Amino acid sequence: MEIDQSTIQEKAGPLTRAWGLLKVLPGKAEAEILRVAKSIKKLGKDDPRRITHSLKVGLALTLLSLIYYLRPLYDGFGTAGIWAVLTVVVVFEFTVGGTLSKSLNRGFATLVASALGLGAQQLASLFGDKGDPIVLGILVFLLAAVSTFMRFFPQIKARYDYGVLIFILTFSLIAISGCRVEELLEMARKRLSTIIVGGATCIVVSICICPVWAGETLHNSVAANIEKLASYLEGFGGEYFQSCERSNSDKSFLQGYKKVLNSKSTEESMANLARWEPRHGCFRSRHPWKQYLKIGELTRQCAYHIETLNGYINSDIHAPLEFRCKIQEPCTQMSAECGKALKSLASSIKTTTVPSSENVNVENSKTAVQDLKIALKAVSLEHDQDLLQILPAATVASILVEIVICVEKISESVHGLSNLAHFKSIEPTVSPEKPHRGSIKPVSKGDSDHAVITIHGTSPDSPGNETPKAPKLG
Amino acid sequence: MEIDQSTIQEKAGPLTRAWGLLKVLPGKAEAEILRVAKSIKKLGKDDPRRITHSLKVGLALTLLSLIYYLRPLYDGFGTAGIWAVLTVVVVFEFTVGGTLSKSLNRGFATLVASALGLGAQQLASLFGDKGDPIVLGILVFLLAAVSTFMRFFPQIKARYDYGVLIFILTFSLIAISGCRVEELLEMARKRLSTIIVGGATCIVVSICICPVWAGETLHNSVAANIEKLASYLEGFGGEYFQSCERSNSDKSFLQGYKKVLNSKSTEESMANLARWEPRHGCFRSRHPWKQYLKIGELTRQCAYHIETLNGYINSDIHAPLEFRCKIQEPCTQMSAECGKALKSLASSIKTTTVPSSENVNVENSKTAVQDLKIALKAVSLEHDQDLLQILPAATVASILVEIVICVEKISESVHGLSNLAHFKSIEPTVSPEKPHRGSIKPVSKGDSDHAVITIHGTSPDSPGNETPKAPKLG
Repeated sequence: MEIDQSTIQEKAGPLTRAWGLLKVLPGKAEAEILRVAKSIKKLGKDDPRRITHSLKVGLALTLLSLIYYLRPLYDGFGTAGIWAVLTVVVVFEFTVGGTLSKSLNRGFATLVASALGLGAQQLASLFGDKGDPIVLGILVFLLAAVSTFMRFFPQIKARYDYGVLIFILTFSLIAISGCRVEELLEMARKRLSTIIVGGATCIVVSICICPVWAGETLHNSVAANIEKLASYLEGFGGEYFQSCERSNSDKSFLQGYKKVLNSKSTEESMANLARWEPRHGCFRSRHPWKQYLKIGELTRQCAYHIETLNGYINSDIHAPLEFRCKIQEPCTQMSAECGKALKSLASSIKTTTVPSSENVNVENSKTAVQDLKIALKAVSLEHDQDLLQILPAATVASILVEIVICVEKISESVHGLSNLAHFKSIEPTVSPEKPHRGSIKPVSKGDSDHAVITIHGTSPDSPGNETPKAPKLG
Repeated sequence: MEIDQSTIQEKAGPLTRAWGLLKVLPGKAEAEILRVAKSIKKLGKDDPRRITHSLKVGLALTLLSLIYYLRPLYDGFGTAGIWAVLTVVVVFEFTVGGTLSKSLNRGFATLVASALGLGAQQLASLFGDKGDPIVLGILVFLLAAVSTFMRFFPQIKARYDYGVLIFILTFSLIAISGCRVEELLEMARKRLSTIIVGGATCIVVSICICPVWAGETLHNSVAANIEKLASYLEGFGGEYFQSCERSNSDKSFLQGYKKVLNSKSTEESMANLARWEPRHGCFRSRHPWKQYLKIGELTRQCAYHIETLNGYINSDIHAPLEFRCKIQEPCTQMSAECGKALKSLASSIKTTTVPSSENVNVENSKTAVQDLKIALKAVSLEHDQDLLQILPAATVASILVEIVICVEKISESVHGLSNLAHFKSIEPTVSPEKPHRGSIKPVSKGDSDHAVITIHGTSPDSPGNETPKAPKLG
């Protein structure tokens, strides 16, 4: 296509071409503007915090302009006020944790580097006028090289990367500047005070106006990821076993899990930033952020299995109807109960309540695994099955069993989180959808192995394809 | 443990405690120093480019110190020379692409923002002494808010994030500074020239001394990832079917693939940086970097399947020996041939030669799939198998079939890369290990569907556990 158009354009004269371009331009520009406007709207809609963040940055910068316009302040800071503006632009991050980490890194690094820079100057001055630049050059070289290498350490990179950068910067500036010590002290004082003003402005604006907490974001995204898997699993049974009938319905729930596959880096950086944040909402200052990474890891593990499972959903080879009918009930049950368990775990994370109702679902899914085993044993007795034909369906069943194990692990890790973070304990309200018989007490982590609750007579219409309400937790 | 120690410490007097601490300290410090030294050594060994990068940053900074010490230069730049040092520290990145992208972003953003800042000052001056700060404040607010929002666009974030940051910074500085226009022009000129000096120093040092090309890194890491999967698949057959005998041997090859699972973000950022790089080595300036992302995506897809497969390698449930023996041959064959195909693809990427010898392996693995089907059909005829017992082994076989499909897709995408990037075409030298019968011509993309090469009489000892040499490509 592109080649065709260019040959046509080459044949036409330059005037004709320009005219053609002019004719096309308004339409194209309009389409482009529409496209951009749409994507702007989508960006803002996807996460309205982006809009408030942008306004906050504008506000912080405008606040600092006051430093320049209010004379008393201006006289106090002088042109070093430039550093306050610079600090705001560089330090203001989307999350409170990011802003705090950068501000503190910047402040401390400037402090340490100033002191070291002064020391380096004193040391170099011992070597006389000729030796001075050489010694300073060597010192700058060594310090820059060593600090740069330190930035490759994963622990330092995760938490102090920006600090090391500012350290190199300030040290070089002070060591190289060649000013007298008194001048330098004055300069360092001014720079530090402006950085403090700039950093403080950022921190105050960042915390006081619609704060975006990295910890809260991590908390919610872990819960949301679990929910995505839940949606998939709840819908899977209906989709796989009745794929022909319902090909037109909305299948977006089958794609949601894909975002979970690559969630690792985001979660890790959020956890790193969350450590900088003070107590907020229901999160203490030493909230067990690492546990979220564990849950995230297990969630991804489950997502990998689902990815493999998903390959079979549109498989061409359909197992004999008879075999499918036999495993349909336990498979749908396993998948749906896993989905419900995950939904319930996600909602317990969201509401920071001790997870309890998911136990029923986990046990139900285990029962379904046993049912499956019985069904499979029955199959082997009949002698009329072709293993090759039933293999895809059998594989689906086998992967579902793995998913059940995975969901149990997720459940344990969420229980671990609930212990570590002291989630609120709430008497489980009975889920309206599934009246369970016999008494069920909330089972804490560790007990879960012993609490075998077998539920007989599950309603045959419950698993599958309509979205069941997550058991309410309060 | 921790609680115990603290209670003991609380009981002892402060002096005893201090003495105890002093006694423990040297030993602890020594252990800590040893640990740090080890991790430093490991960091350097894992990627020696880290060491050269650190030295390069030191060198660039020391070079710029010259600006301060050589008087003529100093007189030319004045204190604005500070910006040159700042530029080096902030702009010097690990890869050439990173350095280029930051330098160019910084340069252009400063240029545009300076012009806009001057315009804003002129505009504000129309409103008189009282209106001036208000208008400027509003302009700074609007520009900062809009630009910050723009940073959320994925395309802008990926390529121009730093530029937008510097744009906000420079515009605010100039708009707020309140200097006269002549002063500003002088300031802008100085800043730009120092940024150019700083940026140019970085670029020259970055390119001329042991350059780290983002493109090359991406190229190699995609190949290395494929190789990791290859190692797994080549070893899988031996590991799964003879797991009891060889439990002591080195199993690190079984873990390598795990790094592939989370490679997406690294690959994407490398591809973004690679676009900034000029022609280098065998990479043209418009090298198809996007195709690497496609290959990477498919590689991860395959890694997800392997992750599921890996769950069965230590499975407790062992299928009846009879069944395992039946599927062992085709399964080991499938896995080993896939491994060989991937090894060959990886080496063809590494040597930038048209992949050819992998066709044989892909076809062999397809043949093995057919063999497996025959074996499975045979199973169903015997009536003495318990489906439940053979399910894990059958699932492994089924997932291996998926992996064969995946490997074929990877092969296609590598062929696509070889077409787009004009890889060298080399007559395939016959692999010494597997003399193939009949003529095999290198099959280009698109033809691959029709080139069915069936090889009879594959040596029974070839698949499995010893590491077969990758077919040589030149």
